[in-house]
Amino acid sequence: MTRWQPDSRGRLQEAAMELYGERGYDQTTVAEIAERAGLTERTFFRHFADKREVLFAGSQNLQDVLVGAVAEAPDTAAPIEAVAAGLDAVAALFDDRRDYSRRRHAIIAANPELQERELIKFASLASALADVLRRRGVAEASLVAEVGIAVFKIAFGRWVDDANEQDLPELMRESLDAIVDLSAVRSSSHHDDERSRR
Amino acid sequence: MTRWQPDSRGRLQEAAMELYGERGYDQTTVAEIAERAGLTERTFFRHFADKREVLFAGSQNLQDVLVGAVAEAPDTAAPIEAVAAGLDAVAALFDDRRDYSRRRHAIIAANPELQERELIKFASLASALADVLRRRGVAEASLVAEVGIAVFKIAFGRWVDDANEQDLPELMRESLDAIVDLSAVRSSSHHDDERSRR
Repeated sequence: MTRWQPDSRGRLQEAAMELYGERGYDQTTVAEIAERAGLTERTFFRHFADKREVLFAGSQNLQDVLVGAVAEAPDTAAPIEAVAAGLDAVAALFDDRRDYSRRRHAIIAANPELQERELIKFASLASALADVLRRRGVAEASLVAEVGIAVFKIAFGRWVDDANEQDLPELMRESLDAIVDLSAVRSSSHHDDERSRR
Repeated sequence: MTRWQPDSRGRLQEAAMELYGERGYDQTTVAEIAERAGLTERTFFRHFADKREVLFAGSQNLQDVLVGAVAEAPDTAAPIEAVAAGLDAVAALFDDRRDYSRRRHAIIAANPELQERELIKFASLASALADVLRRRGVAEASLVAEVGIAVFKIAFGRWVDDANEQDLPELMRESLDAIVDLSAVRSSSHHDDERSRR
């Protein structure tokens, strides 16, 4: 019989991450995770529905933080500015989690089922973001939301890349700015002019 | 023994769509699809791996058309213009398929497994688009690709909405223009100025 321990959840998460990294996600059982953590399976299931949830337990909080920050952006903020405020708030969540995020990313990248789950989480995130933008009166809410989530995905993907040492807020701002730039290029490009100059 | 018939594939698709619409995707079997089409199960499996593939059989072609058009866009085209060329080519595929697309959309919207499959197809599409953009030398290839696929998803979603009678190329151009607009708003917005004017 184990007594409730204040750090059980953290120990289970750490044990799971170690085992997923060492032997692969598919080859790890809940019993093994509990054993590595020095806890029982029963305790595991008090904290997580299944072994997959260990990797996705943070996503509801991430969504709440994103939606909250967008809702609270000043009324005067342009839609993309409201999204930028949301992304800043999300980036703050990951402040001291780069090592964890890299390990998690590697585990997910190695498993198609987990990749699908990640896609679904991103789709829910885009949908929640579109809802809050709509409540702010944004006309192109779904499109702005998709762009915001695209910025998040790309910036996050770069941040977990070992070769990249920039911080997450910086990478998010770079990606947002790249959207501005590519639109600028589009509105100022004139192919016919280009061609006639050849 | 049925002899090969030139329109077997089309008849199987039509029979499947009818049954998925009438009784739901989960409640339909391959045997029923074949029977409705007046063909054998064996013929079904010559055309489709399973009943899900009936709904996704067109996606490889869609990807090839998108990638091909982006690859063949003029060298002088800005990244977002190359994407626009790809989207125009894709839109042309759906020219006379609005009714089919609406039925397919309703079937997928009613089934979480099919929605997941659709998400995965969109992710592959974004990945293939990023690859061809990278081959064109586009620096922000992944980001531009995500934006392009977001435009496609949003415009397509509007096109299959019964209340909407605009055509698909028009909806895609509108969504692309909305990206340009939202960036323009962002680059010209100054919250502090706004606030000081209150």
